[in-house]
Amino acid sequence: MMTDYPTTPLNRVKRNPKRAVYDRAQIHGILDAAMLCHVAYVIDEQPFCTPTIHWREGETLYWHGSSASRALRAQAEGLRVCLTVTHLDGLVLARSAFNHSCNFRSAMIFGTAELVREPEEKAQALMAITDRLLPGRNAELRAMTSQEIKATSVVRMEIEAASAKVRAVNVGDDDEDGSHPVWAGVIPVQTVIGTPAPSPALMPGISLPAHLAPFAVGRRLDDALLETQAIYDLQK
Amino acid sequence: MMTDYPTTPLNRVKRNPKRAVYDRAQIHGILDAAMLCHVAYVIDEQPFCTPTIHWREGETLYWHGSSASRALRAQAEGLRVCLTVTHLDGLVLARSAFNHSCNFRSAMIFGTAELVREPEEKAQALMAITDRLLPGRNAELRAMTSQEIKATSVVRMEIEAASAKVRAVNVGDDDEDGSHPVWAGVIPVQTVIGTPAPSPALMPGISLPAHLAPFAVGRRLDDALLETQAIYDLQK
Repeated sequence: MMTDYPTTPLNRVKRNPKRAVYDRAQIHGILDAAMLCHVAYVIDEQPFCTPTIHWREGETLYWHGSSASRALRAQAEGLRVCLTVTHLDGLVLARSAFNHSCNFRSAMIFGTAELVREPEEKAQALMAITDRLLPGRNAELRAMTSQEIKATSVVRMEIEAASAKVRAVNVGDDDEDGSHPVWAGVIPVQTVIGTPAPSPALMPGISLPAHLAPFAVGRRLDDALLETQAIYDLQK
Repeated sequence: MMTDYPTTPLNRVKRNPKRAVYDRAQIHGILDAAMLCHVAYVIDEQPFCTPTIHWREGETLYWHGSSASRALRAQAEGLRVCLTVTHLDGLVLARSAFNHSCNFRSAMIFGTAELVREPEEKAQALMAITDRLLPGRNAELRAMTSQEIKATSVVRMEIEAASAKVRAVNVGDDDEDGSHPVWAGVIPVQTVIGTPAPSPALMPGISLPAHLAPFAVGRRLDDALLETQAIYDLQK
């Protein structure tokens, strides 16, 4: 498999090409480190931007929702979409307003969404979302019912074109601004895991299961999600 | 001013209407608690989903970028957009795969983007982005040059329709699943501020300025951004 996604007029990064990434593994990593993406699509000439949980199998992205969802019903018939994942990593404070920036990792994926119609593929995809985010959990859950499967739609998109942009450096002030007497630098931000809050109706004697070990309190969520993706990939 | 945004076919939340929010103040709060949004728009029938920094003045949303940006040039001429902000607040783990969910706050805003052409409004908008995110900082910065203003485009969108969805409760298992022996509950996540990393070229003797007090180490970023918005609103 080629290392880079080919650049086309669709995915070529025009602004700040030094921040552009086409490397397949790095783009997959940006996708896999996030639980939520935003999907842009068009219904009746109106663009929509919908947040949703995504997951990835090789060069295929999946998302799901209620079978009654207007978005999923529109996407079922083969709808052009753009799926974007963004991690905010820091506020970049310069000596000039102009050189202020963010540190971030974002991946923008283009393709055509379509409904997963084949029952076996759909059942596998619905297992995969839990296996990928919470490997080991499916085996402990109450099994899915046919009614639940029917109530859920799964959408699939082959990655047709992809690019990412990454800024992960300290501030880039103009040289002549270096003597301007104001603090400059990066204020990092990260998304971290808090203390689990058990269901108020939890049966007595049930503690946190081993399969939640990747979600240790205080850990970065992106690191936890990369670990569960790696566990999932190993188990396939 | 009316408390709620009117519901129309565009913004009415059809799935899980119990999670729907039309309250103006609550939707503004979701927008103001975030630095980044995703904007969906269409160029040549292809939808795009672009992350960008946004800011708000009353019922107007702004974003900005390079004057050479293809997205901003397309949006300049009056382009339909959907701007969405999403905060992920937790993973919701149920006894069944079907009842797994996320805790989140998302706001979806519809309108038409247009370029800010009037020089005075553009200069004010470019001051506002720093005043809103980092109140007090503009006064300490090296002033913007006319070349920097020229190199930057600012886009404005009146909020035409808006809705939000919020899930902020513990797990909603089916009653009959309560006796299934697996841990259930919420794993909260939050985006927090880390230790500032000064520019390697920082002049000796310059410490963190008072205007960065809202960005205390360990604090939630959404809380910090709501505080800076409140400071900004007070100073206007």
